[in-house]
This record gives sequence, C-alpha cells and structure tokens, in this order.
Amino acid sequence: MLYAPKEEIYSRIKKLRHLMENASLDGAFFHYKVDYYYLSGTMQDALLFVPLDDEPILFVKRELSRAKRESPLERIVSIRSIKEIIHHIKPMKRIGMQLDVIPYNDVIKFRELVGDGEYINSSPLTRELRKVKSPFEINLMERAAAIQKMVYEYVPQVLEEGMTEIELGGILEAYAKALGHEGLLRVRSLNYEAYTWHILSGRTGSIVSQSDSPMGGLGLSPAFPVGASMKKIKRNEPILIDFGICYHGYQADQTRMFAIGSMPKIFADGYEACREILYSVLEKVLEGLTSRELFEYSKNLADKLGYGDYYLGYKPHKVRFLAHGIGIELSELPFIAATHDYIINDGAVFAIEPKMVFPKQGSCGIENTVYIENGRYRILTHTDENIIIV
Amino acid sequence: MLYAPKEEIYSRIKKLRHLMENASLDGAFFHYKVDYYYLSGTMQDALLFVPLDDEPILFVKRELSRAKRESPLERIVSIRSIKEIIHHIKPMKRIGMQLDVIPYNDVIKFRELVGDGEYINSSPLTRELRKVKSPFEINLMERAAAIQKMVYEYVPQVLEEGMTEIELGGILEAYAKALGHEGLLRVRSLNYEAYTWHILSGRTGSIVSQSDSPMGGLGLSPAFPVGASMKKIKRNEPILIDFGICYHGYQADQTRMFAIGSMPKIFADGYEACREILYSVLEKVLEGLTSRELFEYSKNLADKLGYGDYYLGYKPHKVRFLAHGIGIELSELPFIAATHDYIINDGAVFAIEPKMVFPKQGSCGIENTVYIENGRYRILTHTDENIIIV
Repeated sequence: MLYAPKEEIYSRIKKLRHLMENASLDGAFFHYKVDYYYLSGTMQDALLFVPLDDEPILFVKRELSRAKRESPLERIVSIRSIKEIIHHIKPMKRIGMQLDVIPYNDVIKFRELVGDGEYINSSPLTRELRKVKSPFEINLMERAAAIQKMVYEYVPQVLEEGMTEIELGGILEAYAKALGHEGLLRVRSLNYEAYTWHILSGRTGSIVSQSDSPMGGLGLSPAFPVGASMKKIKRNEPILIDFGICYHGYQADQTRMFAIGSMPKIFADGYEACREILYSVLEKVLEGLTSRELFEYSKNLADKLGYGDYYLGYKPHKVRFLAHGIGIELSELPFIAATHDYIINDGAVFAIEPKMVFPKQGSCGIENTVYIENGRYRILTHTDENIIIV
Repeated sequence: MLYAPKEEIYSRIKKLRHLMENASLDGAFFHYKVDYYYLSGTMQDALLFVPLDDEPILFVKRELSRAKRESPLERIVSIRSIKEIIHHIKPMKRIGMQLDVIPYNDVIKFRELVGDGEYINSSPLTRELRKVKSPFEINLMERAAAIQKMVYEYVPQVLEEGMTEIELGGILEAYAKALGHEGLLRVRSLNYEAYTWHILSGRTGSIVSQSDSPMGGLGLSPAFPVGASMKKIKRNEPILIDFGICYHGYQADQTRMFAIGSMPKIFADGYEACREILYSVLEKVLEGLTSRELFEYSKNLADKLGYGDYYLGYKPHKVRFLAHGIGIELSELPFIAATHDYIINDGAVFAIEPKMVFPKQGSCGIENTVYIENGRYRILTHTDENIIIV
C-alpha cells in the first residue's frame, strides 16, 4: 500500500491556508471523506479541522492506529464522540464547513456544538486545490490507467457472441480487481452513482437514462437503470466499453469500441469523427480557449463533419459537457462544458469523451483521460485507439 | 425487468398519508432516490411531491419515458429546471423534506423556491413504512437470496490456495452479476460505503477499520480500507465470506465460513457458538423482547459460552449492534442494538450477524437475513450452514 508522503500532505495544507486567508476563514472543517483523504491521507472515520494559524487536527473515531499509519499529520486525536472536539478548538468568527455535501440536520447539530459564527462552504477550496494534480497524484492515475489498458487488452480473450453485457462487465471487473482496481467510483452527489461496468451493445447504446450522459444504457432494473444489462451481445453491432478504474482512490476513465465480426459503417465513421474532435479540441485547449469556447468549437466541428444531430446525444437528450475533470472524484474541475467559463491550465486532468448517439440504433465514441503538463497534453489512457474486431 | 404494481405503490402512498396526517404535514417532498423509488417505482432523476389531500406528483428531469414505464403513479410531469415545480404546488404551512440526507445548501435553495413554512424531516416517515415489508418486496429479497445461495455454492469450485482475497471477491461478484446482482449496496450515509466483496482470511479477519463492524478487513488502499485485500489465501485458515447481493434494489446479506484443508479449532468452535447465539436470539425475538433486551441477552449468552472477549469484536473496538434491518438500504429499521428500544414486529426483515474476532488471529461468524412473518421467523438466506472445507 502507498501512503501519501508528509511533504505532499503539508504542501496541500499550505495551499489550502492560502485560500482560507483569501476567504477570511479562521478555520475550516472537512467532514467529507473524499476531501479529508486529500488533506490527511486517510479515509478512516474522522473529521479534519484546519485552523488558519495552527497545526491541523485530525479527530479519529475509528480506527486510530490505521489513521496514524496512513496520515503523516502531526496532530491525530482519538475521539469517541464528536462532542469532544470542542476542547481542541478556539472561538472563531468565520468558519469553513462543507455545506454542499453535509446533510442539513448534521450541519445544524454541528453548529450548535461549535457555536455561533458565520459558516461558509469550505468545499470550493478543496475543489480548487484538487484542480491541479501533483506528480504523486499523476503517478496513481497512471497506475489506474495501466490497469485499464490491461483490461481493454483482455476483452478480445473473453468477448463472445451471446454473452450478456453484465456478464462481460463482471468478468472485466474481476480481472481489474485482481490487478488493484478498487471497484467503486466516487461522485459528489446525493443521487448520482457511478459504476465501472458501463458496457452498451447495439441498441442499448441509444437508451437514455437518469444520468447526465449522452446515453445511459438499460441497466438491470428500475433500481439500477444505467449501464450494462441482460441484453445479449450480438455479431456485427457496436460494443461501447466505458470502464472507469480506481487505484488508491484515484480514477482514470476511458472508452473504446469493439465488435464481433464487423463494425457497421455508421459507427466506424462516427468513431473516426469522435477521434478527430477529441484531438482537435486538445489542440485548442493548448491555445488557451475557455471551457465554453472549447465546447462550442467541438459542436461546430461535429456539425461540419455532419454529426450535429448525434453529437453528445440526440434531441432532447443532448448533454452540455464534453469533458469532466477527474481525480478522487469522477466529476472534478475543470470541465469542458457550455456553462463553464475558464481557461484550462497546467496540472489539469480531465476525461474527454466525444460520443455519437444514433436513435434506436446505438452509439460510438472515444474517451481518454488527459493531463495538461508544461503547455502540452499527455494521454494517460494510452490503450490502442483502433476499433477492435473480435 | 419487474415493475412495482400500481396497488403496491398506492398502498404505500396511503400509509404514508396516514403518517403525514399524524405529523400534521400539508405535503412532503422526497428528493432522495432510495425513498422516491420506494414511493414511485422509479429511480430516474426526479423529485416526488406528496400532498396530504391530492394526487402525488413525480417531477422528472431525466428520463420521462422510462419514468412513465416504471412508475404507476398517475401524475408524472416533465421538468427542465427544479423551478418549474412551483406551478404545481399550493402554499403549505408544515412541509416535509428529507433533512437527514439532503445537503445543507440544497435545502436552503429549495426553501427559497418553495417559500416560508415549517420544514420537518420527512425521512422518518418512509423509514417507518419501510420497516414492514410487503409480499412484493419479500419476493425480490428471496430472489436476491437465491442468487446468494448460488454464489456460496460456487465458492468450492473456484477457491484456491494462493489466490488473493480480492481475486476471489471479483470472481464471485462476476458470477453474481451474471445472475442479476446489481453490484452496489446502498447505505444512508455521507461517508459510509458498503461493498459486496467482503472476504477476510486468517489475520485480515482481525483487522478493524473505519466501518462500524466487528472487523473491517485490510482493503486495498488508504482510500478503500475495508473488505478484501491483496493478501493471499492460505491453507488451514478461516475464510469469512460476507457477501451482500442486490436484486432490483433489494438486498440480502449473508456470512458463511470456508477453509482450505481444515478449519482451526478456535474458529470452528467460535462458529458453533455464533450459530447458537443466532438461533437463541431469534427465539427471543418471537417472545417479544425489545431490541436492547435482545442485544443484552446475546451478550450474556456469549459470555456464558466463554466468548465475552471476542463477541462482536475485541476491546476497544466492540460494536453495539447484532442485527440491522435490510431492504433497499443496508441499514434500515429494525436493529438489534444496545441503543434501540422497540419490539420487532411482523413484517420486519433484518440481517443478524453474531461474529467472534480473535486479536491478531482472525474471525468467524454467521449471518442470515431473516423475515418475521405471522409470529414466526423465516430464514431467507437458506444456504447450507456447515463450514465448507475445500
């Protein structure tokens, strides 16, 4: 197991303090494990408090010895009840708390405990920090991408006519787990769950679902209406495999196309258009276009290539993003989206996924996880990009 | 795919209205998909509003045609933005909203939209309803348990010395998915995730982690510190398989013990003590002891059998529950726990899991999902209970 080095964690804390100062916060609490993992190195049951001008304190409910092994923070305190934290904090005026994720009732109870003050959402601070990945993080994402490459290369060995989408998904996931894939993908949302086994074949690739994705797939039931289904995979239909991998909490996201026998021309051509869009947009990222401009550019290019009706879904189900930042969560900053207005800078990692959806027929597309480094882009998901015919 | 019948959904709504009346609510909103699935039959991206004296309205963001196919509700309305709901609701004084799960900032925004009024947590209402399972629900849980039985019977075919815990977990999960297992288990919590692949062998069975469980296991990294790990499975050590299955959103939970070669006596004896505790407690459930009394009874019995130091974990990591209700979530009502004070009635389904943890050695235990029906208990997870030696 890899633990986050002390310099890594304290460098993040230092940057956080800078943002806290700008936001005039006297201290900030991090209850959500995704963020206190980022700032402490552990996901044991805990709560992190970062005062503006003193050493951070990790309050650990369970389990202390593991938290101490995993986190290089200097002050790690065991608590049995959350009430004990008040002995360790001073009165504050402006207090950071993760108001975008903590349930309402829990915020109310916590405020009663900590006392009066102005409570400000502290999540934008960590989201801002997490926008820029460190070499330590890139290394973990490269490892996730290496597992992913092996999984995609394993597909031709196991893909067979007549197997169900979910059967293939299970086999690939078992293979990935043996290599270190952690099974779950994390998203910052009450109702949106992400799962690894997103395999759509033929017509299920045109089915829209609850997720904000050009195509959701059929899924297994009304309670799992997204992703692989019990549909059997046939010859000569597109098989879209969008398979997220998680390693030490860090994710890589990728899509490739497969077919048994042959790939119908409409999907083979659409796939080439998607590749062209992906690489053209990456060049424009380097030129410094804003997120919104990049999205518009990609739409215009899709129109020009004759795919306006199918690009990122069909009406009225088109989605308004082409790329999502990725790291410990599947939807981090930065995005390439109609509603985002910023330039994408060095250190960003995002999954860019141009896709075409043909109503009642299916879909095709490509997705790569890309790192922007010294004014250049580097594809982390360096699996072969040709359509694989089995 | 199975859809919830109209009578089932409207019978739940009718019971909900009765609880709303008792709580003097003029209307109640359900934003959390686990609960609006229960009340509507769909998990499409939606929001359910139940007025006290009018037809419920399901507001669907994505995807309308699937929501209409899956839900038998009569009023299903398409919205593009949440703001559109105000055209469909009347002014109210006391308003139900799921304050235990919706993030603070979302509650604040929603209140501004809906207007002044007294906001009351509506989740206790659905949690109360969901405590009693219908025949439709029991049928789905029986199907989950049937998949589970097949998975446990598959273990001897694939378990081999030298494979890692996670490798075995992946293989079993792939097998389960091909049979309809949906991969994710749902829990009502910001930070607690449940996963299927809980396989602990030898010493990893004594490792405690962030989860409220007698033993958490080693997991794969600081970001996934629970469950199966990269530890290789050896001969003559206990292999505890605690494998949750989900079918159409409904879960069944079960634990059985395996070994390659032979089971060390300490674990074989501990397992028999766990079985004795499980069935003795079930008799006491039927006698009408309260949750707390049942828990105390089980502790006293464990003491009497000589397992006081190991029952439900070792100090200071002992847990204070023996059973958790189960259904669409892994921790529903009723519990058998030190802090719960009610009688367990007809219609309840819970997973009861007496376990012994021996420090630095490992653990053993049994778990069954049990249905209380007409004053009797019925084990839904009817897999053979003998220790399986491979």
